[in-house]
Amino acid sequence: MKEYLKKDPWHIIEEGFHPEYNRISESVFSIGNGYMGQRANFEESYTGDSLQGSYMAGVYYPDKTIVGWWKNGYPEYFAKVLNSTKWIGLEIRINGEVLDLAKVNIVDFKRDLDMRNGLLCRSFHIKMPSGADIHVEASRFMSLSRPENAVMAYKLMCSDRNIELQISSTLDGNVTNQDANYQEMFWDHHMEEISSDTMTVSMTTRKTAFTNMVKASHKLSINDKKVKISPETETAAGFCRQSYSIDLECASSFKLEKYISAVSSRDYEKENLAEEASKKLQAALRVGYDGLFAEHSSAWHDKWELSDLTIKGDVSAQQGIRFNIFQMLQTYTGRDERLNIGPKGFTGEKYGGSTYWDTEAYCIPFYLGCSDPSIARNLLIYRYKHLEKAIENAEKLGFTGGAALYPMVTMNGEECHNEWEITFEEIHRNGAIAYAIWNYINSTGDDNYLREYGLEVLIAIGRFWAQRSTFSKHKKKYVILGVTGPNEYENNVNNNWYTNTMAAWCMNYAIEAVNLVQSDFPTDYERIVKKTAFSLDELKDFEERSRNMHFPEDEASGVFLQQDGYLDKEDLTTDDLSDKDRPLNQNWSWDRILRSCFIKQADVLQGLFFFEDRYDRETLKKNFDYYEPKTVHESSLSSCVHSILASRIGYEKKAYEMYLRTARLDLDDYNNDTDDGCHITSMAGTWMAIVMGFGGLKYQHTEIQLNPTLPSAWQSYAFHIIHKDSVLGIEVLRDKVCVSNKGKNSIKIKIYNTEISIEPGTVEELSS
Amino acid sequence: MKEYLKKDPWHIIEEGFHPEYNRISESVFSIGNGYMGQRANFEESYTGDSLQGSYMAGVYYPDKTIVGWWKNGYPEYFAKVLNSTKWIGLEIRINGEVLDLAKVNIVDFKRDLDMRNGLLCRSFHIKMPSGADIHVEASRFMSLSRPENAVMAYKLMCSDRNIELQISSTLDGNVTNQDANYQEMFWDHHMEEISSDTMTVSMTTRKTAFTNMVKASHKLSINDKKVKISPETETAAGFCRQSYSIDLECASSFKLEKYISAVSSRDYEKENLAEEASKKLQAALRVGYDGLFAEHSSAWHDKWELSDLTIKGDVSAQQGIRFNIFQMLQTYTGRDERLNIGPKGFTGEKYGGSTYWDTEAYCIPFYLGCSDPSIARNLLIYRYKHLEKAIENAEKLGFTGGAALYPMVTMNGEECHNEWEITFEEIHRNGAIAYAIWNYINSTGDDNYLREYGLEVLIAIGRFWAQRSTFSKHKKKYVILGVTGPNEYENNVNNNWYTNTMAAWCMNYAIEAVNLVQSDFPTDYERIVKKTAFSLDELKDFEERSRNMHFPEDEASGVFLQQDGYLDKEDLTTDDLSDKDRPLNQNWSWDRILRSCFIKQADVLQGLFFFEDRYDRETLKKNFDYYEPKTVHESSLSSCVHSILASRIGYEKKAYEMYLRTARLDLDDYNNDTDDGCHITSMAGTWMAIVMGFGGLKYQHTEIQLNPTLPSAWQSYAFHIIHKDSVLGIEVLRDKVCVSNKGKNSIKIKIYNTEISIEPGTVEELSS
Repeated sequence: MKEYLKKDPWHIIEEGFHPEYNRISESVFSIGNGYMGQRANFEESYTGDSLQGSYMAGVYYPDKTIVGWWKNGYPEYFAKVLNSTKWIGLEIRINGEVLDLAKVNIVDFKRDLDMRNGLLCRSFHIKMPSGADIHVEASRFMSLSRPENAVMAYKLMCSDRNIELQISSTLDGNVTNQDANYQEMFWDHHMEEISSDTMTVSMTTRKTAFTNMVKASHKLSINDKKVKISPETETAAGFCRQSYSIDLECASSFKLEKYISAVSSRDYEKENLAEEASKKLQAALRVGYDGLFAEHSSAWHDKWELSDLTIKGDVSAQQGIRFNIFQMLQTYTGRDERLNIGPKGFTGEKYGGSTYWDTEAYCIPFYLGCSDPSIARNLLIYRYKHLEKAIENAEKLGFTGGAALYPMVTMNGEECHNEWEITFEEIHRNGAIAYAIWNYINSTGDDNYLREYGLEVLIAIGRFWAQRSTFSKHKKKYVILGVTGPNEYENNVNNNWYTNTMAAWCMNYAIEAVNLVQSDFPTDYERIVKKTAFSLDELKDFEERSRNMHFPEDEASGVFLQQDGYLDKEDLTTDDLSDKDRPLNQNWSWDRILRSCFIKQADVLQGLFFFEDRYDRETLKKNFDYYEPKTVHESSLSSCVHSILASRIGYEKKAYEMYLRTARLDLDDYNNDTDDGCHITSMAGTWMAIVMGFGGLKYQHTEIQLNPTLPSAWQSYAFHIIHKDSVLGIEVLRDKVCVSNKGKNSIKIKIYNTEISIEPGTVEELSS
Repeated sequence: MKEYLKKDPWHIIEEGFHPEYNRISESVFSIGNGYMGQRANFEESYTGDSLQGSYMAGVYYPDKTIVGWWKNGYPEYFAKVLNSTKWIGLEIRINGEVLDLAKVNIVDFKRDLDMRNGLLCRSFHIKMPSGADIHVEASRFMSLSRPENAVMAYKLMCSDRNIELQISSTLDGNVTNQDANYQEMFWDHHMEEISSDTMTVSMTTRKTAFTNMVKASHKLSINDKKVKISPETETAAGFCRQSYSIDLECASSFKLEKYISAVSSRDYEKENLAEEASKKLQAALRVGYDGLFAEHSSAWHDKWELSDLTIKGDVSAQQGIRFNIFQMLQTYTGRDERLNIGPKGFTGEKYGGSTYWDTEAYCIPFYLGCSDPSIARNLLIYRYKHLEKAIENAEKLGFTGGAALYPMVTMNGEECHNEWEITFEEIHRNGAIAYAIWNYINSTGDDNYLREYGLEVLIAIGRFWAQRSTFSKHKKKYVILGVTGPNEYENNVNNNWYTNTMAAWCMNYAIEAVNLVQSDFPTDYERIVKKTAFSLDELKDFEERSRNMHFPEDEASGVFLQQDGYLDKEDLTTDDLSDKDRPLNQNWSWDRILRSCFIKQADVLQGLFFFEDRYDRETLKKNFDYYEPKTVHESSLSSCVHSILASRIGYEKKAYEMYLRTARLDLDDYNNDTDDGCHITSMAGTWMAIVMGFGGLKYQHTEIQLNPTLPSAWQSYAFHIIHKDSVLGIEVLRDKVCVSNKGKNSIKIKIYNTEISIEPGTVEELSS
């Protein structure tokens, strides 16, 4: 755990340069706008430790997979979001000496991420090796309102002498992925050009043939007065450089503004890219830095208005939750239903920027709760559009008749992952995809989604479970053999309770959805039946399997068993572990982890969280008491679920302890791995821990209820909830809860088991 | 299945060249002498399909391992026996045209492996592109009596014209392994030299620093009269060439004999290699081809005298079993206890030439049965010498206090394999190593082995099982969780019956061995207790665990269950599979294989085979009837065990069917994979299927019994059995069995439940 960042409610601040943590800072200070994003690499040359990364969402390369021992059914490729054209680059020479923070004397240094406005700033005062006192102020942002534009400003001043300043601005397409499996080049360069003061680099991914084009132009000023300086220019394959030489007087400032446009063949015909990129660039140049920033800042205001969560009395917690929300909002904006949320977002290469079940289990509840519903809807449509590929994926594994198995890891709908115990067996992901549809419809009331998209997905998923469950003559029940549950510290187990629960629920929900569409939208029903060749016999089969599913349970204690045979394990708790055992995944061999009772992340408890309404408090408590002491939380997705359940059963201390593990995971580099990138998808879990945990938000049928508690470390907290057409403002204070209806219709909600109706524009107060 | 090889009792013959099967032929016609071996590559240049391979036993390279996703505990390296200096090479030009069987008109071609004498011959008649009629006779062998020598003769004649013949003989160290993970060079060349008509290439493996030196000299003759021709010489890194130019008259023959010596730093100090290689080469040159062959042939006679198994009335079966015995004998001669038996022997690179449990489970019974006992003993000592590494290996996985886990795959005692489900979980291998000790002592009566070597190994293995078994409060039994049994189509299962049975047996055998050494060899006992820090409390613990081990069983049917939960699987048999399903490992995804009931290779039945004496015929039958129909025999190690058990319970037809699957596996390329090399270790199984299956050989305590049956396709069969100090000749005819005592002491055996005593030099006949 590191605590080098300053606590502040709206800013992330590094004061004094920490080169030893530079990769961590590069991750934490990342900025993006849903369309593109980048790590907080320095503009000027830096020979210290750094992981360079500029990413364009959805531009990927199918890297040839690497395996020790091939298993039948493995995918050939792992699709990876690519490090793409680096546009921030500056090469600066002061009297011929290169400005490189690894080689100068640093007097002052500050890095500042303004989350309120999505602005990354840096300022420093250094002494060059030859002695010149240099002051720099740099800022940049990726426009939220014009996603294909970004801009940066770099202002330099020497306070003790006149200097010869040479500043070269570059576009650099000679970039690689650190995680490339075979050191292959992912890009072909086919254009680098400098004309009319504009640099252009265009390149195309191998195999997938995505073409990106980046254009950059500059505005220069001295002492804030616009100047024109003729640059020297240079191009090489995939590379452009414009170099400006200035005799800069002592205490005068030189500023370079760099405007870029970045477009890709994902959105335009290749032959139109140059025109589109020029148009976007020219428009940005016309509006200028300040104008662009004003628009951008206003777009962030709009986002924050709905999505902010304020905490009073605990600046560390406030900064933590804002950072998490900020990352969620800048990673996925919901504009493009072909995109999704990689576990590292735009903050690193790890996990290839691909889509996991994290989206459905964690991100969708967040976006549903506090963002425009179209965002969650587009995440659902992403999976709808992959349905055909999910059916092909299931066919590869021997399933037939339109059964779908969604991939564990994917970019374009095809499976990427290649560990048999995950790829083929962690099939519960299919359940999360159905659950997200249910969640979305409950939250938005948008029944149309079912007939338009949802039902086809639910039928295909139901079919998968029907084929994947088999009848055990021995148990006289349907069983699901050979699976990996959410707890990946168990592989190839039989009858994982969570998976079986999900499977039965999915088949039931498919029945329900079929019936609903049949009765409410008969024309759509006919169309879908025809398209999917669905028969009512299948419904009967779903019903039979769901009703006779085996759910392992310890009859003596009433605890649901994570899987068959779980009780045969040595009955230990984390108290039996010593410091040198933990984290288990770094200290124990894999087999030892597998045969131990220790749990990586919520598994049975994940199911209890999803289907809480079915179980009484006693059951929740019994299972929580049994599983929480066996859970090592070595997944970033684990503690938020435990925190929420702890809140539900009144374990306030435990709830807060679990919340703390997720809230500042990356800011404090809890797990020593933020250097690779931030844990974007688990950030949604922090919001859930507060709103669904402390706030007690639950969806019950189509209504919501709240049961707020206030952690003792806080004075109050407040957030918004979007439900159907309404926006509710919730403020939880020590002795009361204030609920304001910010929408246009009256709304009924249940608070502390009291049903209240709130009129638009009014506030209700309840004592807690 | 291919049947292009001619049936013959003592020869393997390819008549007519089959370039499409060339890799298969290269595997099948491989020769070796325990010290070195090579695939049947052509001497002259060949541009057709070929897998080049010359191997020196025990000279290995730790190739950096390759994985998709690293698991804690994986080894960094996979040790591989290396393709090393190619010494057979000839480059032949006829009137300037290269002789290359891929580019000439082949009139006649014959390849012949004389198994009786360990001689590889080839003759062909070709028309060169320009028309010359060329006749070649080539032969070579690797001396069984002088393992560091090999020799070849290559005789060429043109029958229709005078020719200019240029024949270049090479030593070539520029060789690579096809299965190198990272295309790394494994060798450093540091010497290539031609002086006094001798070529020398010396090279050293990277990392392991084994130095090999190969020397070659020639004898030339025309029309069988010795000639001297001054060669042109050429050297390059790791390469020597001597070129002879001859004007050869029509119908005159030119013969080149190439003598080599190959020595390595495994056996000599590096500074002495040159001297040793020269000495060996000069000695071979002095003796000459015929003399060397006479010695070699005589050594083969000695081997065959004990090890041959004759079958009358079925030449295909006779050829099959001889081929299997031949390969066993030439792969491992028992001279060097640092060596072992790779699954491909000297016939290919696959599996890296490393040691598997195949040695203990299959090869040792073969060598024990029909070879000098020192061979099996040296295979045991190989493991004894790796004991320390096996303890380290267990420590890496979290075991303590001198518990040993022998590696799944090894060269020098360190684990090489990197699939968690195998490496960490296929722990039953430990049992086979203990079982081999028991087997050896039963067969030889060599109790000294226990006090000298065996007991330390048994204690360390017992300790492993004691730590690896845990108490299930639920079952009130000791359980062994998370294992892979012999049936690798199940991974990470709980309580594999075979593994639990082995574990309990090992702990019991350790107790027995401790007691025996304590009472019979008290001094050794004291030494071992001190060395191992063994305490009598451990014995109690072994006893307690062994007595209370859980053995899964279907109480209703009395069938032993392969593992917990096996009855939950769909109850299918191979009759439910269609042709397009098989082999499963090529047609089903891995998860589907895992959750099916289908069994790769004998598992419960392997245990019943090992511990047959404990079970009545009814139990054997019940389990065989249950498991055989579920077994797909997709391991070459499977069918021999099924064949033996089928013989035991009187299923003659099934026994013969299973025997056929193993007998000619490589000769007929049953599994379409002989191109990679032959299945050497499973060849021992064919011998077992005949001797232990049809012959009914069993070890009962320290006595043996026979219960021979004669397959109806055969007239008779005969073999030898070595037991303690005796050699028994067994001949099984249609109506009787003849047993001759070829040793010096009288011996008691039980045949068909009749105990008989046979005096030295006499024959007993029993009607069957």
